[in-house]
Amino acid sequence: MGLVIVGSIALDSVKTPFGEVTDALGGSANYAAMASKNFCDTKIVGVVGEDYPFDYIELLKHNGVNVEGLEIKPGNTFRWKGVYNDLNRAETLDTQLNVFAEFNPVLPESYNSCQYLFLGNIHPSLQLSVLNQMPNVKISACDTMNFWIERTKDELLEVIRRVTILFINEDEIRMLTGEENIFKAADLIAEMGPKLIIVKRGEHGALAVHKDYYFFTPIYPVKNVVDPTGAGDSFAGGFMGYITGKNSFEEDVVKKAMVHGTVMASFDVEAFSIDRLKDANLANIAYRKEEIRRSVWF
Amino acid sequence: MGLVIVGSIALDSVKTPFGEVTDALGGSANYAAMASKNFCDTKIVGVVGEDYPFDYIELLKHNGVNVEGLEIKPGNTFRWKGVYNDLNRAETLDTQLNVFAEFNPVLPESYNSCQYLFLGNIHPSLQLSVLNQMPNVKISACDTMNFWIERTKDELLEVIRRVTILFINEDEIRMLTGEENIFKAADLIAEMGPKLIIVKRGEHGALAVHKDYYFFTPIYPVKNVVDPTGAGDSFAGGFMGYITGKNSFEEDVVKKAMVHGTVMASFDVEAFSIDRLKDANLANIAYRKEEIRRSVWF
Repeated sequence: MGLVIVGSIALDSVKTPFGEVTDALGGSANYAAMASKNFCDTKIVGVVGEDYPFDYIELLKHNGVNVEGLEIKPGNTFRWKGVYNDLNRAETLDTQLNVFAEFNPVLPESYNSCQYLFLGNIHPSLQLSVLNQMPNVKISACDTMNFWIERTKDELLEVIRRVTILFINEDEIRMLTGEENIFKAADLIAEMGPKLIIVKRGEHGALAVHKDYYFFTPIYPVKNVVDPTGAGDSFAGGFMGYITGKNSFEEDVVKKAMVHGTVMASFDVEAFSIDRLKDANLANIAYRKEEIRRSVWF
Repeated sequence: MGLVIVGSIALDSVKTPFGEVTDALGGSANYAAMASKNFCDTKIVGVVGEDYPFDYIELLKHNGVNVEGLEIKPGNTFRWKGVYNDLNRAETLDTQLNVFAEFNPVLPESYNSCQYLFLGNIHPSLQLSVLNQMPNVKISACDTMNFWIERTKDELLEVIRRVTILFINEDEIRMLTGEENIFKAADLIAEMGPKLIIVKRGEHGALAVHKDYYFFTPIYPVKNVVDPTGAGDSFAGGFMGYITGKNSFEEDVVKKAMVHGTVMASFDVEAFSIDRLKDANLANIAYRKEEIRRSVWF
């Protein structure tokens, strides 16, 4: 049992109105793993260069994340440099793919027993390759972005046809379907295959669409957002970790997973990198979950 | 007891991707009244011209709305003409203030016993005039818009200092406070006086901020939005009607009022003018309320 997370591992240099960091621990796999590890056995797959700080790997291991699927390749680690002038949109200043350009995810044998899979935002052909390596996966999920919708739409649609859950931004689901109404757009995706469409809405929370129900979660009211990088991945990691830990995809578990994802994203944005996310524990997670409950229950 | 609603009464000509209407019943007071009348005794204050269809007044009376405060003046009724190319933003093609330019709201004596007041989006000096006419009001609320924030900010701030509840759009609260973080922006408004700030977020629902609690409500998932005109007024009318009917401003009532406002807005957007709003009744309102409950409860 457990959750396999495949995604980018990056060294991020980020500037926001509240400060900046250089070569900080980043990437979708790292964020998702640091969120999911609170709820389930978590295993990552990714690639880094020889320059990747040993401490960053140790941090994940220390947090119980299985890093057997983390490959160290000659060369430099994927680097992303960005600035947030307002906190709702990052401007990319520089991207250096480095060893990530040749990423070819190979799952260690010890990961084979995992029945849950999260495919972070990477090239759809890599996502397909991982799906092919996990024929017995029970619940698979993928994230994506406008870049792949514009450039590799056919491959992305093939991934979407095969996963149980699609995580996608509000703008992106409109771009992908050509449908403005978000509920109709989700219906169009559901016709392609996914049983659950999770629409990420930034500061407006998230929406889950299933043929039998809708579920809306607001954000946790963070007044001091320091760096939004990784919020979507922390949300997805928290969500996937929760359903993996419960080994269930039932309505009540999915709804609680949405809220736990939201809680993890709230920790993420309170500091750069995973500086606050790593302080999350079952007690402060439960506290925020109850605060969200109070803010929506009537 | 009862709710006084002061606002515009208009003849709207609206075009959306789903059709168009000419000189249809419109205006903030009409929308708010047709929403609130389901929950409480509702009295409107407004002005129309001699061209205003008698049937439109009869429709309100037939729905139990007290129209004693509706003044008929020589001249033509306020007219608004707009087009929605996408459903999130109206483009104004023409505005003819007509008799509305000289609107000077005077409350009939029979309205004096009302302890609840909703000031629709009109000139802040008129909102102040109404507040001065209701010295014994228990709960007062105002709506506003960017137009008044830009042109009559001082008068608007005076209104805000005096009301219990401020209804305001997400963009507008940022404009008014200069604060991007919506929770901090609401705190800044709370310092001015209002006990409750209700941030309207369009397709993302609404957020209520009180010093003791937050409350988020999503929208009711309408797949066929025909005309969004009046959604904000229907929301506010449903909200104010609900608290008036319960004669309470307690947390549990405010939260349920948020949901009932949302339900009324969902009826409004399903047709032009008040064509669908008028079909709302306690049964179909309760049904939608329960559907919203299921979409947020975990």
